This record gives sequence, structure tokens and C-alpha cells, in this order.
Amino acid sequence: MIQAGIVGGTGYTGVELLRILALHDEVEVKVVTSRSDAGLRVDASYPNLRGYIDVCFSQPDVKALSQCDVVFFATPNGTAMLMAEQLLVAGVKVIDLSADFRLTDVQEWSKWYGMEHACPDLIAEAVYGLPELNREQIREANLIACAGCYPTATQLGFLPLIEQGLVNSDSLIADVKSGVSGAGRGAKVSALMSETGESFKAYAAQGHRHLPEIRQGLSKIAQQQVGLTFVPHLVPMIRGIHATLYAQFSGDASMNLQALYEERYKNEAFVSVLPEGVHPDTRNVKGSNHCQISVLVPQGGNTVVVLSVIDNLVKGAAGQAVQNMNLMFGFNEQLGLRTVALYP
Amino acid sequence: MIQAGIVGGTGYTGVELLRILALHDEVEVKVVTSRSDAGLRVDASYPNLRGYIDVCFSQPDVKALSQCDVVFFATPNGTAMLMAEQLLVAGVKVIDLSADFRLTDVQEWSKWYGMEHACPDLIAEAVYGLPELNREQIREANLIACAGCYPTATQLGFLPLIEQGLVNSDSLIADVKSGVSGAGRGAKVSALMSETGESFKAYAAQGHRHLPEIRQGLSKIAQQQVGLTFVPHLVPMIRGIHATLYAQFSGDASMNLQALYEERYKNEAFVSVLPEGVHPDTRNVKGSNHCQISVLVPQGGNTVVVLSVIDNLVKGAAGQAVQNMNLMFGFNEQLGLRTVALYP
Amino acid sequence: MIQAGIVGGTGYTGVELLRILALHDEVEVKVVTSRSDAGLRVDASYPNLRGYIDVCFSQPDVKALSQCDVVFFATPNGTAMLMAEQLLVAGVKVIDLSADFRLTDVQEWSKWYGMEHACPDLIAEAVYGLPELNREQIREANLIACAGCYPTATQLGFLPLIEQGLVNSDSLIADVKSGVSGAGRGAKVSALMSETGESFKAYAAQGHRHLPEIRQGLSKIAQQQVGLTFVPHLVPMIRGIHATLYAQFSGDASMNLQALYEERYKNEAFVSVLPEGVHPDTRNVKGSNHCQISVLVPQGGNTVVVLSVIDNLVKGAAGQAVQNMNLMFGFNEQLGLRTVALYP
Amino acid sequence: MIQAGIVGGTGYTGVELLRILALHDEVEVKVVTSRSDAGLRVDASYPNLRGYIDVCFSQPDVKALSQCDVVFFATPNGTAMLMAEQLLVAGVKVIDLSADFRLTDVQEWSKWYGMEHACPDLIAEAVYGLPELNREQIREANLIACAGCYPTATQLGFLPLIEQGLVNSDSLIADVKSGVSGAGRGAKVSALMSETGESFKAYAAQGHRHLPEIRQGLSKIAQQQVGLTFVPHLVPMIRGIHATLYAQFSGDASMNLQALYEERYKNEAFVSVLPEGVHPDTRNVKGSNHCQISVLVPQGGNTVVVLSVIDNLVKGAAGQAVQNMNLMFGFNEQLGLRTVALYP
Repeated sequence: MIQAGIVGGTGYTGVELLRILALHDEVEVKVVTSRSDAGLRVDASYPNLRGYIDVCFSQPDVKALSQCDVVFFATPNGTAMLMAEQLLVAGVKVIDLSADFRLTDVQEWSKWYGMEHACPDLIAEAVYGLPELNREQIREANLIACAGCYPTATQLGFLPLIEQGLVNSDSLIADVKSGVSGAGRGAKVSALMSETGESFKAYAAQGHRHLPEIRQGLSKIAQQQVGLTFVPHLVPMIRGIHATLYAQFSGDASMNLQALYEERYKNEAFVSVLPEGVHPDTRNVKGSNHCQISVLVPQGGNTVVVLSVIDNLVKGAAGQAVQNMNLMFGFNEQLGLRTVALYP
Repeated sequence: MIQAGIVGGTGYTGVELLRILALHDEVEVKVVTSRSDAGLRVDASYPNLRGYIDVCFSQPDVKALSQCDVVFFATPNGTAMLMAEQLLVAGVKVIDLSADFRLTDVQEWSKWYGMEHACPDLIAEAVYGLPELNREQIREANLIACAGCYPTATQLGFLPLIEQGLVNSDSLIADVKSGVSGAGRGAKVSALMSETGESFKAYAAQGHRHLPEIRQGLSKIAQQQVGLTFVPHLVPMIRGIHATLYAQFSGDASMNLQALYEERYKNEAFVSVLPEGVHPDTRNVKGSNHCQISVLVPQGGNTVVVLSVIDNLVKGAAGQAVQNMNLMFGFNEQLGLRTVALYP
Repeated sequence: MIQAGIVGGTGYTGVELLRILALHDEVEVKVVTSRSDAGLRVDASYPNLRGYIDVCFSQPDVKALSQCDVVFFATPNGTAMLMAEQLLVAGVKVIDLSADFRLTDVQEWSKWYGMEHACPDLIAEAVYGLPELNREQIREANLIACAGCYPTATQLGFLPLIEQGLVNSDSLIADVKSGVSGAGRGAKVSALMSETGESFKAYAAQGHRHLPEIRQGLSKIAQQQVGLTFVPHLVPMIRGIHATLYAQFSGDASMNLQALYEERYKNEAFVSVLPEGVHPDTRNVKGSNHCQISVLVPQGGNTVVVLSVIDNLVKGAAGQAVQNMNLMFGFNEQLGLRTVALYP
Repeated sequence: MIQAGIVGGTGYTGVELLRILALHDEVEVKVVTSRSDAGLRVDASYPNLRGYIDVCFSQPDVKALSQCDVVFFATPNGTAMLMAEQLLVAGVKVIDLSADFRLTDVQEWSKWYGMEHACPDLIAEAVYGLPELNREQIREANLIACAGCYPTATQLGFLPLIEQGLVNSDSLIADVKSGVSGAGRGAKVSALMSETGESFKAYAAQGHRHLPEIRQGLSKIAQQQVGLTFVPHLVPMIRGIHATLYAQFSGDASMNLQALYEERYKNEAFVSVLPEGVHPDTRNVKGSNHCQISVLVPQGGNTVVVLSVIDNLVKGAAGQAVQNMNLMFGFNEQLGLRTVALYP
């Protein structure tokens, strides 16, 4: 049984971590911090947790957090980088769900996130937390930069194609759609139900922060700089990401992509390649840590289409964080994560 | 480890039973019947179950079902009554999620359900499956008539008031709202998203089938015939029931209702009385077997208001069925049902 | 052609006024104020208005507004009372969509709205803007306090019963449900799609600001103080209010309520009594100024149930304001308001 | 004042035609056919029309329809082709909202629609009803094949680029998303709220019937066969289409696309090019006949992205049909179509 702390327990990823960890057999949640709700019982703010957690929110405090075996940062960007070093020095493993340690190029990071990085030295130590790509390094890591939600769906979708060098990597297109919980729990007019319900739109089409993260990940796999157009959209639903990915065959278009994808993911508990002709649906992964993928070549042409779905708060955030934690502590990778998606 | 069969595995309550039983430590699902999908893998029809269940749908067959320890009927009304007797004779415990055995008055049943009852003799043997009311009888039962969804939310809400005789039982009002999954998975125009989304309406206000069921339950508690006005409504969401209940104090209006409710439910794992001033929200029980309740007397008047929420597919159907099963087989009542509601 | 000003043009009722007035044959919108968006083109903030309005938001300024024939206040409570007097003095007709002039008892107003009233003297001059109740006074009025959204649906539903003294007026119950646009366009966590989507809850059950307004209206009709329990609920949809009203017959329960309601509303263009057995649905009034009503006595008992639906932003706010304006200026009452609800 | 008939008045496009035509100054709706609802008042089936239309559904009958000046077919594919000829012979103008006359290649039509064409001779006479492309021919036409919903959003988005030959026309990508009303009013499990709410998926990615229609339209503009990948998706909302279009510059990437689009559409009342940096949102055209478009080149690369939104039932169906009718009868093109989108 290990002891866990969560910094930023009142955002959606924080609450989702609580939902998962409350029932995890090897974890006891000891500390949940929240500046706004400090002193309140966690289950008073989140009545879905009544009967499952017996902790109060506390002010963030490195000392208290240092008593934990692992600390999760479910904070806005720019917070984890201020506290990670002290915790690591204290021997605590750190799992950051924000973007502070995702980009290896600190200049690029500053450009996209609009601030100076507070501890650039740690960046090299951080392991990018996408287990299907970096499982062995994650096992040894002390600091994890969990993959973002869009980047998880997109990279898992493109991975087999790019590993095999089958497509032209300079004109990749990722048309990705997310439920509104991805916008977080902040009070913003743009995330009101009256603004987002019964409507659909693209946003940040000129350039979204997840663009450099996806580009970095795919370039590493391709072993060359990839060209990517990434357009995120907002779907009038709460949870779920659907990536529709387009690539042009660079050579032989007769490849059996179905077999390739099945082979690539056959040992992955949380990635499921659907049978030919079946389209993934975000509802089939709602509340679960699974990614479901289809691959096809419409009308036998030159364009490959990959459809990839996850729950942005689970495989795109809290679930993936726990999957990383399981690896770091030598637990069964699926512990606490075997849940069936909520359908309907 | 017991073996379970599900008759009618393709409706929403059937799929929900699968979601719960697939992860239940003491149950193996052996038979799942479906006339329409016989021969197909269950997880081909319901991809959320990929990796969790390895069974194909089969034609309903009493012989195969007789090998099970327990058989659930997640069928339309009128099916369970045709097969229950043979299964009981074969020593199988039967849990009916439909309405076939809910009403003790067979004439009343025929009037509301529009058909002759096929085995009226079994009605007396059936135990009404609402554990908070009938726990001890359920433990001994071989045939359970699971409480309906509206009746569960409504009875749990009124229970303490009526047990204590605090309110005028001849003018009870239940204004109840349900998500559309309650309408089932049949192809009906009235349940299309274009018909039900972004809209709200009452239906069957003249008389809904759950009216006699609730009236029977409350009358038994009150030990006299109650008068009830029950108006169901359709909410543009998938899961959840919210009952808003109104009653007039019959005598002393100074009673501490908060304490009464807390005391009544203090040992109930699945009923939670919220602190004074907190309103229940269906999202806080979505996907879980919990009922959350508030009681108040607005403006210190003579009208008691009770707010009671459940997930219609869990505590209102499949979860309650499993709770009943746990009792019947001597398992921990919470086994397989400790899940945190999916928020947001 | 009259000239109109709108104070508070960026909230939902303000934008809805613009939608209606932009196509009104007798009105030209000259001034639209907004502190936050002053200087911006209205159709830059609200692209649905592109091609229909050619005005910029301006800072609220009594002088500019005084050039108008009519000024609408689509502001938070507490603003209209600061400016109304000056405008009236300047000969401008004032239509307040907020609650500043709705309650005739200024103490009661202060209690519920939590502030001192800035111009109590004007309260007596204000006419309560519910045309079906006060048409003749509205024609003569210079200051209109438009009826609130819940009060409109509730009062139109109860009106015929109470005018005729058919029901016990000391135990009226109004169980009312509203779409989330009723919460306004402010940045509030509680109105986020992730908080309100796929969920249903009651709120302010202990006492909502519309309680005294409805009670005042019904008491005036009843010519005695009525007793009312009013429980508002939040529906996961954007527009629409559904009132489910309950009352006990005080005498003869054999009254033909259908005929009574049809007779009462036969000359009302915006109130439609549905045929017996038909339930109103909020979608059938979405975007229109209509109220649709059904009345029934379930199971032939002693309880009357009335179902009443409106679009909270139209008949519950902006449409009703324009209906009032049409009366005040001697236009056809339906001018600019003959629109068919958007179904599906 | 002309007289109009609608064949198939109970589907969503039929009801939408009624909504528009009921308020059209130059049209009287005389005949509305429906096999299922014949004899019923139209406003009994569609209570949103109460007070706006005074007609009963009738059986489809060529004789009665021949008395009309114009007949709209809002029928499933395969119906209009059976009746169009007789009506044309009788001097009635025919506007087909289905796909019967959209494809000029009858073999292609049969392949995609799975039936023999009943009157191939008329195909050549039909004018493709997209006014922004074919306005002059529409004025002279007797038979209009209204453009489909996806094809309208997609073609209006690609039009300026392809007319100018700026992009590589052999690898166009259209990632298009539609609300569920596009699936029609048939009783299908796949269109239930419980199936489509809170979920997002692609469908028919291998090949959708609108693919040949879009390809035919774009090829005609490009004056060469275009290569198109078209992936439709289902959005959990009722109305709206959002097309996200991708193309690669074929030559000079420094073109001012904003100016090009604004110039191309400056005289189009129903197409609006949004300012640079603004993303269109389907809610801003909900219930209106407008198309709003943005064009951008993300990160200054080689890929052009066009975002184009319409209401699938208005500009994608009934509104466009009325726009075509206005042209055919020499009315103001905007008559009956000047309505502001319903926001929020």
C-alpha cells in the first residue's frame, strides 16, 4: 500500500484521479490540496465520492506532500515546475498531468505556454508518460510528464503507420474533437452549457499548445521532423476525444493495415483495434482507460484514415497517470483501471 | 463463484447487468440470450465490453438457463412470467427486472399491463426487490420482482415520512423526472435524439404503470391505502431519475426531519442523506448504485419536500438486481457495486 | 418607426431582444449598451446577427438613451432602478426585464434581492408586464416590470383555476423546470456544460426569488394570500421552462377544466390550450413567444395538474417585453413575434 | 401568391419547409401529403405550427398536387422520380430535396442508391440547386435537385479555392460533422438519444452517398476529376453541419485567401466570410439559411484549412429549397428567409 498526494484536487482531472484511486487496492490517498476548498471535506465538494474517501482538502504544502510515496499534479500549467524538485529530492515520485515537462525544447515550451520555465534542468529527467511508447523508461522514472489528451489519441492512432514509415510524414492531418470537460472546471463564458450545448466549432485552428507536443512525439518515432496540421474542435458532450487522422501513403498502398495495427497493439491492455468496418464511438470508452482504434483506406485510394477514441479524463489524463504509477511501482499495469465504459 | 444467465441481453438493463457482472468477483456470466443477436459475440454488439466478457448471445433456452445458479430477466414485460416457473423448478433463482411479478393484485396487473398474467400462482411467492425495505425476505427468496426505477426513487424518498406517519397520506405528490434510457433501446420515434434532446415534457400524466406499484408499496408501509398523484417527465439526458416529492404534515410540523432521515438510512450502504441545504444532483449517482436524498420544509411551511436521485439503470434496475442477488447468495451486499459515480 | 435602446445588450435576454427587434417592422435599434464590449460591433460579438444589425455597443449613457422612444433594461437586478427615473422624465418609455419593479412591497423586495431599492417611489407607477393579465394597464403604462420567466409559466398555468376559485389556494405547488440559459451569461462554474449537462437537480428549494413574485401575482388574482410551494429545477437544455402545477379542488371536482381553459385563453394569440390528452413539450415553443398549456385531473381524483411551457428567453423575457412594447405603442400585439418554434 | 404542395410532410425537412413557408408572404401551402398521418391536422402532429397553418395531411395524389404552382419533395430517395414527370407535364415546378436528380451519371446513382432510376430522361433537365453556383440556371429551371446538406457546406467551403485553381485537387479532404437530425425522423436505434447523446463517432468512412455528389460538383468547378476523401461524423446535437476542409497549395502559398473569399461571396446574402481569426460555430446559423465560413493557413504552412457551417435543415435542405423557389418564381431571393439564428 503506497501513499499518494494530489495537488489540485478540485479540477476535473483531480476529481477523476480521486475516483480511480479511491478504489485502487494498492493506494491510499493521504493528501488532496486545494487553495480554494482547503478545510472542506472532499466529499462535501464532490458528493459522488461520499462513502469512498475520508479526507479534507488542505493547502498545498511540500512538507506534507513529502510524506507521500507519489504526488500527482492535477494543476494548471506552471505549478508542478515550482514544486517538483523539492519532492523529488525528498524521494517522492512525481506524476505531472499538466504540460510542464512535456516539451524537451524549453524555448518551444516558453513560446507556447507564455512563461519562463522554472526548472529547465528537470526537463531532461522527465519521462513522457505514454506507456504504449515508453513503457520501460516509465518503470524507472521518478518524474513523469503525462501525455496530453489530444496527443494521446493522436499518437496512438498514428503510431503504427509512422513506426513503419508507410506514410508521407510531412503532410499529416489530425482533425480532433473533444468534449468540453477538456476545457477544465474554470468559470469561463466559453464553456457554459448555453454556449457549447447544441453547437460545434473548431478553435485554435491557427495553433494549439498540443501541436508541438504531438509533433515532438511523432518526430521522435519518425526519426525526422514531421509536418502536421492539427485542428481541435469542441463537441457538445462532456467526455471523449475522437481523432480523425489523415495521411498519404508514401509507397506501397497495398499494405494490410488492419493486421499491422492488430499486431502492434496485441499486447496492449488499453488499446483495442476494432474489426474492419467498425467505427469507434467515444461512448464505448466513456469512464474507462481504453483507446479504441480503426484504420481504413476509403475507396481504396491513397489516403489512410485512422479513427481513434479515448476518454479525455481517463486515458487522456487521470487513468493514464495511474497506469504510469502502476508501472513506476511495479504493480500490475491494469490495477484500478479495469472498468467497463458506461454505455449508454 | 456462481453461474449467471441473462435473458434479454441487448436492452439497456441487460447491457448494464453485463457491465456490473463482468467485474463481479463471485459471478461468471455463462448465458446471455438475445433473439435478434444470437450467434454474435456480446462484445461485437457492445464494444465497451471488449476485454471483459467472452460470450456469444444465444437463443433463449430453458435447458441452458437451468444450468445457471441465477437467471436475470432483462426482458420486456410479459416474458419472465413464461419461463420463471420452469427455472424455479430446476432450482434456479430468478431475478426479474421487468414488472411481471411486482403487483400482488393480478387484476390490477392485467389492467395496467394489458395482458393476462401467465402464472398468477407465482406472484405470491415473489419478493419485491427493494433491499432497504425487504432485506430479510430477499435473503430467503427464490424469485425476486425488482422494484421499478421510478418506484425506487419515490419509495426511498417517502419511506421515513410514511413509516413514521408524519404526513397526510391521501394527497401525496410525486413529480418525477427520468433520463431517456428509461424508455429502453427500442426503435421509437419518440426516443430519437431529435425528439428528446433540448426539450422537456411530462408524459402519461393521466396514469403511468408505475403508479400502482408505488401506491402498493407506500400503502403497505402506511398500512392503509394512500392517495398519490404521480407525474413522470422526460429529461434530455441519458441516465438519472430525480424525484421531487411533496407531502403535507398531518400533525406536528416541528419534527427534525434531517435527523429522522439520517437515522433511517444510517446502515444503508446505498442510500445517502445529504447535509441540510444541499440539493442532490443526478450526476452524483451516474453509473453507481447509490440513492442520494435531501429533505426540507420550504419557508417553514406545512409542505415537506423530498428530493431523491438514482441512476435509473443501476439502483433503478441492474445494480439493484445485483444487490438482491448478493443478498440471496449470502455475498457481501456491496460486492461488485462499489463504484464511484462518473462526474463530470 | 420608433427608436429603441437596450441597456445590457450582451446577456442572453439582451441578445434575444436584438434577434427579435432586428426584424421588427416598427422598431429601429439605435443604442445597445455594454460596459464590457463598448466600441465593438454587435455582430462581431454575436455573429448570428451578421447582416441584421449595424450598431456598435456603447457605454450606458442616459443622454443617448433619452433620444430613444423606448429603452429596455436587460440588465442584472439593481441597474434599471438607477436609470429609470431620468429616462421617464425625458419622456422615454421604460421596459425593465429585470426584477427591480416587480414586487409592490419594497421591504419584501429588499429581503429577497439583498439591497436597498434606489427609487421606491416608482414602484407604484410600474405595471406588471404580463399582457394576459394586465393588457389594458400596459397600454397606458410608461414603466413596465416584465414578468419573470418562472412567474410567467406558473401564473398563466394557474390563472383560470384561481380566477374561478376552484382550488384550495393555500397549498398550491409549482414544480418548475428551466433550461440553463435562465442562469444567464455570467461566468459561473455551476453553469458550465460539464456541470449541467447530463444531469438534473432542484435548486433554491428553500426559497427562490421568483416565489414572492408568483405569490404576489396569484394572491392578487385570488384576492387573498395564497400558499405556494415553489421548487425550481435545472434541465440539461438551453431554452425552455416547463411548469408542473398541482392544486386540490376546493369544491366541485366535476368542472370541465378543458372548456374553462379554452374559454379563458381563446382570444390570446400567445397562449394555446392543447387538446385533452396532449402533453406540452418545451421544444414546441422554442424560439417563439407562445405558451402551451394542458390541464388534467389524473385518475379522476381530487388533484388538478396543469402543464405549462414557454421559452424562458422569449415569452419569459425578450418576447414578452416586445409584446408589452407593442401594446404601449399601439402596434399590433403580435408584430415581430409571429415566429414558429424551431422543431426539431 | 403561389400555391405550394409538399410531398412527405412528416419528416424533418418537410416540417422545416412548413415552418418557413407558413410565414412566406408569397406562398400559400395547399397540400401536405403523408401516408402515415393522412387526415390529421398538420398542427396536431406538429404543435409548433399551431396558429400558423390550417391544413390536414392528405394521401399523396398527383391530381391534387397538379393544382399547385410548385411541389416540394421532402421524401426518402426514390419517391420524387416516380411523380416528377407527371407534375412537370402538368406545368408544376418541382423542387426535389431528396437525391433523385442530383447525380448526372445514372449508373453512379444506381450504384450508390441501390436501385434503378425510374426516369433517367429527366436527369439532364434537372438543375442542381445550389444558388451560389447555379443561380441563373435555377431561375429558368422547372426541376431542381436541391444540393444535399454535406455537399452544400463542403462545396461552399471549397468553391473559391477550386475556382481559382489554387490547390492540389487530387487530395482534398473533407472532415464533416452533422447533427443527428440529418439522420431523419425514422425510428432507428442508431438515432436514439441514448445512442447518440454524449458520444461522437465517424460513420460511413469507407464511402457515403454524398461523396459522389460532392466530387461531381467540385470536378465541374475544377474542370477535371478531383480526388476527395470525405469522412462524415455524428455530433450529439440536433441541428448543424460543420465542414473542416483541408487542401494543399499547388503553387503560390502567399495568396490572400481572406480577400479572395470575401470577394467571391460579397454579393451572396446567405454566405458570410468571417473576419480573420474568427472560427464559425454552428449555433450562429441554427434555424437560419446562412452559411458562415473561415479560411486560414495554420502556422503559415502549405495546408489550407476552411471551416464552413450551415444548419443542415435550412441551408442544407428546406431553406435552400425555398431560396431556389424564390429564384424560380422571380421573388426576392431572401423572401421568407431573413431570420436570425437562434442563439443561445
